[in-house]
Amino acid sequence: MSAEAVRVRGCLVGVGVGPGDPDLVTVRAVRTLERADVVFVPVSEGLPPPGRAEATVRAHVTHDRIRHVAFRMTGDADYDTPAVTVSQALREHPTGSVAFATIGDPNVYSTFTTLAARVRALLPEVTIETVPGIMAMQDLAARSGTVLAVGTETVALLPLTAGVDAYRRAVADHDTVIAYKGGRALPQVLDVLAAADRLDGTHGTAVYGACTGLPEEDIRPAGELPRDRPGPYLSTVISTRRRQWPA
Amino acid sequence: MSAEAVRVRGCLVGVGVGPGDPDLVTVRAVRTLERADVVFVPVSEGLPPPGRAEATVRAHVTHDRIRHVAFRMTGDADYDTPAVTVSQALREHPTGSVAFATIGDPNVYSTFTTLAARVRALLPEVTIETVPGIMAMQDLAARSGTVLAVGTETVALLPLTAGVDAYRRAVADHDTVIAYKGGRALPQVLDVLAAADRLDGTHGTAVYGACTGLPEEDIRPAGELPRDRPGPYLSTVISTRRRQWPA
Repeated sequence: MSAEAVRVRGCLVGVGVGPGDPDLVTVRAVRTLERADVVFVPVSEGLPPPGRAEATVRAHVTHDRIRHVAFRMTGDADYDTPAVTVSQALREHPTGSVAFATIGDPNVYSTFTTLAARVRALLPEVTIETVPGIMAMQDLAARSGTVLAVGTETVALLPLTAGVDAYRRAVADHDTVIAYKGGRALPQVLDVLAAADRLDGTHGTAVYGACTGLPEEDIRPAGELPRDRPGPYLSTVISTRRRQWPA
Repeated sequence: MSAEAVRVRGCLVGVGVGPGDPDLVTVRAVRTLERADVVFVPVSEGLPPPGRAEATVRAHVTHDRIRHVAFRMTGDADYDTPAVTVSQALREHPTGSVAFATIGDPNVYSTFTTLAARVRALLPEVTIETVPGIMAMQDLAARSGTVLAVGTETVALLPLTAGVDAYRRAVADHDTVIAYKGGRALPQVLDVLAAADRLDGTHGTAVYGACTGLPEEDIRPAGELPRDRPGPYLSTVISTRRRQWPA
């Protein structure tokens, strides 16, 4: 029987390993990674390993069944090659479990979503599961002393790739607005917040975070940022309508 | 020197212990709880202990420095009595750490926010920190196979105590809408989703969850709920504009 003819009934698990600090991983994530037949960690082509996910995995996993899977981060995203790589591991373990470690939560703006869909297209009988992980916004909230929501406040979460107009509407409509992937659009984000007087103004405050938990961590009031410079791709801005620690 | 005259420079840490399943706690939370001089767990007056937070704490903590702090859940919330109890523990450990375990994340609709503000009013020199925790929406997403956000989708998160009109606007404006504390307003939530054709309709699907991780867990498509019955207070409804596992 060829490898292709094996019926693959194993499990692909997207494991959220948190924002990058190894101790912000859950006990379930550690157990899932430890038991997996293979643990994939994403590496970005052109960047030196280990990535954030791999650093957290290696801090907790004792086995040596960790493999790299490369993602192209520039131009059109390619999920087909990673899907073939992951599918091959599932074929090698047709009733086992293959884990894919991803920073943050595997159900919130995660590479895992598209990867899993492509793997399922190749191997329709695979079970797909996820283990939740701490998200960047939660990490930034804790590190900066920012309460994300209290009482009847409403929250909007969006990537800046959704456009600055979507961000402006969210700021008009919601008490707390969390913007991901702020990098390139950061100057416009600051303009929107300044116009709404939510940049350390009478209508609220905002905090900026990038590389949280890494040596190059940058957390500060968004009002202290230069108004004309983009930020890193994975930066986060949290805007609230109030001061910290409401009574 | 009286107890009141001691300058309290200790730390009050709000520790998110996740949605209730003991293994959905982070490694940092476990370490923080283990090292704390006192660990408070909330108990609801009128409900038998242990609560969800206490069950998770007792699954991981080996010491016996766990204390109950009672919250009145009916009528006007009373934070003053719990704040006095917690402040007394901080006075007993003026340079130590006192942890307060809370389900979910301590910065997202958490009892901890108001409690910490009251403690700070009593003891201005106390340091307040938080440890993030997995939220109910993340747990429900993972258990139900629901992707919360992908690509440029936007997300709104709100408690139904913000009103059904706020919920209706969120459904009109956002790809994913997460409603907490849906209990009493559940029939109206279902009406809004049905009117938007997002109740297993052409414009999306919705999943309902209550008591996730407990024996009485209830997770199902929101379209299968009776349309005229309220749900438990801590129920969650996730509405998305798409099918699961987008490619």
